Amino acid sequence: MELLNQTINSISNIDRKYMNLAQQRLDSLFKPVGSLGKLEDICVQLAGVYRKTDFDTSKKAIIAFAADHGIYEEGVAPDPQEITRLQIPNFVKGVSGVGCLAKSSNADVVAVDVGINCDDLIDGVLNYKIRKGTSNMAKGPAMTYNEAIRSLEIGIELSNKLINDGYTVLGIGEMGIGNTSATSAIISVFGDFSPLDVTGMGSGLDSDAVIKKANIIKKAIHINNPIKEDPIDVLSKLGGFEIGAMAGVILSASSNNIPVVLDGFISYAAAIIAYNLNITTKEYMIASHFSKEKATSKALELLNLEPMLYMDMRLGEGSGAALAFNIIESANYMYTNMAKRDELCSII
Amino acid sequence: MELLNQTINSISNIDRKYMNLAQQRLDSLFKPVGSLGKLEDICVQLAGVYRKTDFDTSKKAIIAFAADHGIYEEGVAPDPQEITRLQIPNFVKGVSGVGCLAKSSNADVVAVDVGINCDDLIDGVLNYKIRKGTSNMAKGPAMTYNEAIRSLEIGIELSNKLINDGYTVLGIGEMGIGNTSATSAIISVFGDFSPLDVTGMGSGLDSDAVIKKANIIKKAIHINNPIKEDPIDVLSKLGGFEIGAMAGVILSASSNNIPVVLDGFISYAAAIIAYNLNITTKEYMIASHFSKEKATSKALELLNLEPMLYMDMRLGEGSGAALAFNIIESANYMYTNMAKRDELCSII
Repeated sequence: MELLNQTINSISNIDRKYMNLAQQRLDSLFKPVGSLGKLEDICVQLAGVYRKTDFDTSKKAIIAFAADHGIYEEGVAPDPQEITRLQIPNFVKGVSGVGCLAKSSNADVVAVDVGINCDDLIDGVLNYKIRKGTSNMAKGPAMTYNEAIRSLEIGIELSNKLINDGYTVLGIGEMGIGNTSATSAIISVFGDFSPLDVTGMGSGLDSDAVIKKANIIKKAIHINNPIKEDPIDVLSKLGGFEIGAMAGVILSASSNNIPVVLDGFISYAAAIIAYNLNITTKEYMIASHFSKEKATSKALELLNLEPMLYMDMRLGEGSGAALAFNIIESANYMYTNMAKRDELCSII
Repeated sequence: MELLNQTINSISNIDRKYMNLAQQRLDSLFKPVGSLGKLEDICVQLAGVYRKTDFDTSKKAIIAFAADHGIYEEGVAPDPQEITRLQIPNFVKGVSGVGCLAKSSNADVVAVDVGINCDDLIDGVLNYKIRKGTSNMAKGPAMTYNEAIRSLEIGIELSNKLINDGYTVLGIGEMGIGNTSATSAIISVFGDFSPLDVTGMGSGLDSDAVIKKANIIKKAIHINNPIKEDPIDVLSKLGGFEIGAMAGVILSASSNNIPVVLDGFISYAAAIIAYNLNITTKEYMIASHFSKEKATSKALELLNLEPMLYMDMRLGEGSGAALAFNIIESANYMYTNMAKRDELCSII
């Protein structure tokens, strides 16, 4: 709890002074003011985050956490639970979605087992297993309050380490069969939405199965009666270990003045938890893509974030964050190298 | 006219056989079917375009055409006309918007003067000047019918050359103070929209100036009475040399089985001209970003295209196309390197 509290309490607002300086530089470039839209917004935000007018965005990593979910036994996901275990090594081998897209963006992937339902240690995957999956939230809390804190602190610890190793841009990712259910439950609670309005097809449910899934989520919320004002309570009752750990990365990045790139639907739940632990974390978040999973609009409204990419993607893993790394680097390249108006002509 | 007709007549549909093969490969990868959305769509389209299951998307160029506009004298743009001349060298020096974003995407930029209002030859810029800017379309046709054909054929000629030199992905870009007026006029004619509904702020007009601009466009359409069924007639009466040349690139790319990446608002006019010359060109187009200029939705509806990037950009130059190159390369990397389901496990 000490690491968590210390991290939450050491987050400060991004620096307006450097944001203004970045905006001034952007406005001095040889282009109509504001015409590069979100590319400019990113540079202004990064200047505020880093407290610098010039910054390096080349050393990038996705931290991806994998865990299983007790709710799986209710039949909320069409895939075998074993997929969590089978897919995670491919993150680091560069042959999963995020593995490929991170390689293509020249970024590293750090994969972490925080709760996979398996007994073996997985080659190349860090072992921070809390337990072999959460409990079934339709029957009681998914985890204990202490386990929720532990999941957050694992994220903080690993993110602190990566930042200490020199990474200047972090993205979050995940793997966990059943985790759209946990995410929909969290969005439902924080937004006061009916579960049916925020439950989607996940990796491929038909419409009847989606209704069944929404009813199970409704039951889980009813049974657990989470206290919205205590995000750790919500996380413990309805979350997943990987969701807590991703929220921890957001807290760590924010406390270390490092930007954190969100991925898709599951990452929104982590962002909502982090935001409710400290609203200033939002200033450190960059939304990458608009997930195809239902309730994306509602989740992003809770965060008041607008993504750059509309790719109809719904894979997770960190794939969207990895794709957005390209755009962040292009934005920084433009900001650093574009000609200034007054260098080029005196007539304007 | 011969090169133009020959090009238009040699465009065939992209190949369904290779699209199906690409779709089969994508569906065999270790991810929920369809979960990578537009990244998958791009790969399927490229397989059809190239008539290959494996393809190289690394040799990329933006062809950017610059020209001035007679309508400028009506006060439709807030910037000095000299900006066209001043900015174009920065395209190839890598210090304009497209210059920076192309460098960041590891792409080349070919800049072409097709009608800048200047007498000098510009270092690094190809000289294909048709005339020192179009005539004022509010008083008569912007160009002659033959000049419109010439602009299309310049685009074809240069694009053929680049493809012959080994480029496998082309993007289009432009520079021309006043060219949102030409674009709005073209969209108005092809979509039967009122000019006021498709006229926007360009590089920075206020709302009164936008209404004035729309009225000038209305007058230009009324005076010229363009024949919608003859896209060359519309181009000659309301277009710009750079718009014709970009349409030529689309025709050439389509006839050579090469994909062509659209940029922003002005490029939509070129795409509409090319599409109306041969609807099959659409199969070769990739929409990059959703321009912030008003009427983007209407223009993209005419083409039935949906972009990947929503960046609030309104710079043009080819900047959005250059940014999208990253995503196309990432899509191809994923398609080529991602693990197959049956290589990894037999349980599924």
